[in-house]
Amino acid sequence: MADEELGEFERIRRFFAPLAGPGGLGLLDDAALVECTAGQSLVVTADAIVAGVHYLLEDPPELVARKLLRVNLSDLAAMGARPLHYILTTALPVELGPEWVARFAQGLGEDQRRFGIDLLGGDSVGTTGPAVLSLTAIGYVAEGKELRRGGAITGDLVWVSGTVGDAYLGLKILRGAYPEIAAQHREYLIGRFRVPEPRTQLGPMLSGVAHAMIDVSDGLLADLAHICETSRVAAVVEADRVPLSAAAQAIAAREPDIRARLATAGDDYELLFSAPPDATTAIKALSSQLGVQLTTIGRIEDGSDLSLLDADGGIIPVENIGYRHF
Amino acid sequence: MADEELGEFERIRRFFAPLAGPGGLGLLDDAALVECTAGQSLVVTADAIVAGVHYLLEDPPELVARKLLRVNLSDLAAMGARPLHYILTTALPVELGPEWVARFAQGLGEDQRRFGIDLLGGDSVGTTGPAVLSLTAIGYVAEGKELRRGGAITGDLVWVSGTVGDAYLGLKILRGAYPEIAAQHREYLIGRFRVPEPRTQLGPMLSGVAHAMIDVSDGLLADLAHICETSRVAAVVEADRVPLSAAAQAIAAREPDIRARLATAGDDYELLFSAPPDATTAIKALSSQLGVQLTTIGRIEDGSDLSLLDADGGIIPVENIGYRHF
Repeated sequence: MADEELGEFERIRRFFAPLAGPGGLGLLDDAALVECTAGQSLVVTADAIVAGVHYLLEDPPELVARKLLRVNLSDLAAMGARPLHYILTTALPVELGPEWVARFAQGLGEDQRRFGIDLLGGDSVGTTGPAVLSLTAIGYVAEGKELRRGGAITGDLVWVSGTVGDAYLGLKILRGAYPEIAAQHREYLIGRFRVPEPRTQLGPMLSGVAHAMIDVSDGLLADLAHICETSRVAAVVEADRVPLSAAAQAIAAREPDIRARLATAGDDYELLFSAPPDATTAIKALSSQLGVQLTTIGRIEDGSDLSLLDADGGIIPVENIGYRHF
Repeated sequence: MADEELGEFERIRRFFAPLAGPGGLGLLDDAALVECTAGQSLVVTADAIVAGVHYLLEDPPELVARKLLRVNLSDLAAMGARPLHYILTTALPVELGPEWVARFAQGLGEDQRRFGIDLLGGDSVGTTGPAVLSLTAIGYVAEGKELRRGGAITGDLVWVSGTVGDAYLGLKILRGAYPEIAAQHREYLIGRFRVPEPRTQLGPMLSGVAHAMIDVSDGLLADLAHICETSRVAAVVEADRVPLSAAAQAIAAREPDIRARLATAGDDYELLFSAPPDATTAIKALSSQLGVQLTTIGRIEDGSDLSLLDADGGIIPVENIGYRHF
């Protein structure tokens, strides 16, 4: 690594060291420290993104940073964990230059303050290919209180936070679709794609309420399938109950068939969970308290299938609209 | 990420899930769990490597994996921490194929067993560029017992484990240098470059003995400079005391000037530490107990300079031989 050291040292010192928390030791040591608290478990997750694959080269670097961070915070929330720290490794092409890195670090800084977390450490190397950004997030949960995918049982209701399909539509708009829709809808949907809202407050509060939880990253139905598979249950989702934003509704009004497609859309980073019917009052109270929409979209049943139903109870063949069984 | 999911899911399931420990939850959840023990701190470090930059495309994948893991374990050892878990994110070009990944995972599996650690989780994505492999390692140390870079004080002796310069020579040999040296020396030096030996046992045992510690990755003098800078002290190293392997000695016998160069070589992943003179007996006892060579190569002084001395006490101008002050 000798031939790139000066640049990398300087990069870390200028842009990343100011983001380090006390455990990061100023990014001046071989490793970072995380204090352990008795009765808590640490929760760890990681995601990597690649320029040109997971984001566009021309995307604002601040937003790339914030999405990378938020995607990981969403994974922590889906376990019922509160976020603490993150570790970042970047492999960047030399062409990228310090301005890109400065703006990327600025985006991290903004979201650090927003979510009350700090940088522990990482690595910064050069690559001859597209940028690869890898982030490991660390959170905590009271011991035994983590929410897993495998806890759904027959009779549970299936809930989802916020609205579904916005990120999918936002990406389509960025690619030139729906030129006719209103400017505020365009902005809203693009924003949902670029800067998701991880449910960091809701997630931990569902511990002890929900039976199983996951975040919507692969797609609403695909992620529900992960719950079903791990919990060894079946699920039924009513397409018309899948909550859509005003912007998505405006599009669905002109293109009704898109409703089923939106039920398979991913990247919304909403929380998808199952909970027993008698938890409904508590869940509605949480919804009011946090100002977060929480909607029942279906139920858990015996079996292993996942069904999407139309308004008349007919089965919509999800195999044909983007859902694949793993 | 939808268009590559099937491949990535399958890749994780086949190759990486078998490496997961209990906290990894079978790599089937959004995040992994790490139990906290009161009175301990977790220690976290990360390194990223890029194909064609940090390793050669034709390098055996098992060895690439083992080096990536070991480099991180060395960072933990340098903090006095014992290793527990690791998190891996890979960005791989599609051309790489399952055989490369299978062999890479096999290398991880071998070293997991060797060092008593397991995989917690991670991510696996595709890239249009060279492979980027990013690993975060987690270890633990008794609270307050971590070894930092900033603890060196005037009067300390400077120690290094093992031998220095082997990895540098190994890389030179891989690039065609020293065709004349004996086969067993060639193999030894190449092995030191490809599969370093992190001092995972020694590191934690130096807690309470050493004042400051770092591992030799950037270069012996560059890493000592990190200690000096953080500790606000100066250091003197006697070039003739820098321990060389039999293989390196064979090369130095024909090319005496290389000794000074070897003192600036990196990538050996030996431990470099300062300790008070009255710790010498304890350090020698550790050396015997573990069968690890430990050598005093200099001393810590007042000031901020780093000097390399020749046999007559003359200053070797290190600026000219690869050492750069940060």
